[in-house]
Amino acid sequence: MSTSTNATTRTTPNTHVAAWAAPSAKAPLERTTIPRRPVGATDVRIEIKYAGICHSDIHQAQDGWGEGIYPMVPGHEIAGVVTEVGPAVTKFAVGDRVGVGCLVDSCRECDNCKAGLEQHCTGGNVGTYNAIGKDGEPTYGGYSTHVVVDEAFTVRIPDGLSLDVAAPLLCAGITTYSPLKHWGAAPGKKVAVIGLGGLGHMAVKIAHAMGAEVTVLSQSLRKKDDGLKLGADHYYATSDPKTFEELAGSFDVIVSTVSAPLDFGAYLGLLRTGGALVNVGAPEEPVSLNLFSLIGGNKTLAGSMIGGIAETQEMLDFCAEHGLGSEIELIRADQINEAYERVLASDVRYRFVIDAATIN
Amino acid sequence: MSTSTNATTRTTPNTHVAAWAAPSAKAPLERTTIPRRPVGATDVRIEIKYAGICHSDIHQAQDGWGEGIYPMVPGHEIAGVVTEVGPAVTKFAVGDRVGVGCLVDSCRECDNCKAGLEQHCTGGNVGTYNAIGKDGEPTYGGYSTHVVVDEAFTVRIPDGLSLDVAAPLLCAGITTYSPLKHWGAAPGKKVAVIGLGGLGHMAVKIAHAMGAEVTVLSQSLRKKDDGLKLGADHYYATSDPKTFEELAGSFDVIVSTVSAPLDFGAYLGLLRTGGALVNVGAPEEPVSLNLFSLIGGNKTLAGSMIGGIAETQEMLDFCAEHGLGSEIELIRADQINEAYERVLASDVRYRFVIDAATIN
Repeated sequence: MSTSTNATTRTTPNTHVAAWAAPSAKAPLERTTIPRRPVGATDVRIEIKYAGICHSDIHQAQDGWGEGIYPMVPGHEIAGVVTEVGPAVTKFAVGDRVGVGCLVDSCRECDNCKAGLEQHCTGGNVGTYNAIGKDGEPTYGGYSTHVVVDEAFTVRIPDGLSLDVAAPLLCAGITTYSPLKHWGAAPGKKVAVIGLGGLGHMAVKIAHAMGAEVTVLSQSLRKKDDGLKLGADHYYATSDPKTFEELAGSFDVIVSTVSAPLDFGAYLGLLRTGGALVNVGAPEEPVSLNLFSLIGGNKTLAGSMIGGIAETQEMLDFCAEHGLGSEIELIRADQINEAYERVLASDVRYRFVIDAATIN
Repeated sequence: MSTSTNATTRTTPNTHVAAWAAPSAKAPLERTTIPRRPVGATDVRIEIKYAGICHSDIHQAQDGWGEGIYPMVPGHEIAGVVTEVGPAVTKFAVGDRVGVGCLVDSCRECDNCKAGLEQHCTGGNVGTYNAIGKDGEPTYGGYSTHVVVDEAFTVRIPDGLSLDVAAPLLCAGITTYSPLKHWGAAPGKKVAVIGLGGLGHMAVKIAHAMGAEVTVLSQSLRKKDDGLKLGADHYYATSDPKTFEELAGSFDVIVSTVSAPLDFGAYLGLLRTGGALVNVGAPEEPVSLNLFSLIGGNKTLAGSMIGGIAETQEMLDFCAEHGLGSEIELIRADQINEAYERVLASDVRYRFVIDAATIN
């Protein structure tokens, strides 16, 4: 593992760093060593301080989407400090507090990249882990001590934000900020959030900070006290059929953060005329939808996937301005497998974050 | 039948006028006589010149949605001339060329009514036919010689538009204009229209006039020549699987005007990032949808239902400015039943319009 903490403008040789990896599908994660590429002209080398555990880390580590690349080092909610910069780097200096999210590269030439929608790059973007980089090598994520990333895919974490609570913003924050902004969460608007988990709790905080009136729609009232503390104005149990009567026609925007199959007819009935139900989570299986539930009321069923790099920076600035971080449970690296079990059991309030100092 | 053609500020007694009605579900339409209410303070009495035949006329006449009110006089694409005005009417005078669409009243107090979205009135709007008016009497539609309508639900047909080709705009025009405008059809944008029928041919004309690059997606190339003449830039057969490969990721907006169940995954694949597929037609049965086809690409599946009164006026002004009318086949009233058969067989280019002079 590299211990360099000094700035240099030289490109360094491949270094090996400590990490936690899934050696194969469905095997527990274990400590290992992985290569990190030399710091290229536009790269920054980051000493990782914290890495969030996203539900999709578990899904990918267990090869839920197939074609997993092993050993796999998950982690796309990375917060750390720059320890080295390439000679052409202009945005960052050694010592800067930075983050890396779901992407570490993209084609940079397609219409989407030019529009700041790198997450929808049509030329082929590069995931932070479980992907093949432009150098032909596998990418390894944030459950590690260091990472080398092009500055174009590195964002600044404002001083007001602690790195530990900032880490989950790199996925959970931007995934909810982007659709809330796009679909108009603002003062005078009513926003509902389906599911109060890693994504949902950030959706509540952000929608509240945007000035909207926020309602949590959760299966039960078990987390009601939390929801109200996080910024929700109202909290309803979706297991109670009266919820759907009482809230009919209420919301301008509903953000669904869950992957359970929902009765979309019922949820679309909660929208006001012209309202939008945006899915940032989704079940694997197709859902059944009567299109008349969209036509009556000029309604919208939409999807949203993370956010672009510029918008991720905007989200971090917004969160710093409003004092928003994730609610986290800090763990040691040797607790990752246990944390995975607890995430699968919905037993986390609301994001596990690995203290990268425990990875060595 | 009233033969009054002079202005008066008196409220007149109920009059009886000639009409064509379905005496019961699934019985052929036949000539009959129906009452029209006295001209109230804010009413205009209209001598109907032309009435379009909308597919939903057939559906309702045949009790496709249930609870049909018989005898039923269909027709919500009405163009005519004002022959009498109530004492409080301010917008219209005798001799004005006017239209009436799908609605003749609404609560006028709910948020949607105040926002000009009378079609989504939550207090209860009144359909032009097959509904119960605020006076407790059934409403009768445009297959008739005269109609009495509140001026608030009457729109002006600009001089540049012939009444016969204007009639279908009151439903087919506004139903396509509203979503095309809302979802951003404009120069530099690519719009696709699924289905080249009564709605589809207006969608093509309007999207073209809005400056968009227009593609028709039709089952076959049978109407290709027509489509290009109507303003389409491209025309593809959806029965050819290559269409879906070639056009993948192409469109900013797709308007579906068909009621056949579509493979929505395939059609959503034709949208660009951030694009919207808007349904103005829809199958009765639920469709199957994988939400990841929305999440990947931040896409939208939306619905849209006709348009409000102010927007209907805006649409008519737009059509007059751009010289847009419907492509019609003018028929006599005694051809209505035959026309219904031909609409059901998709054998009309592109809208049957009844010459109301043949109703007597």
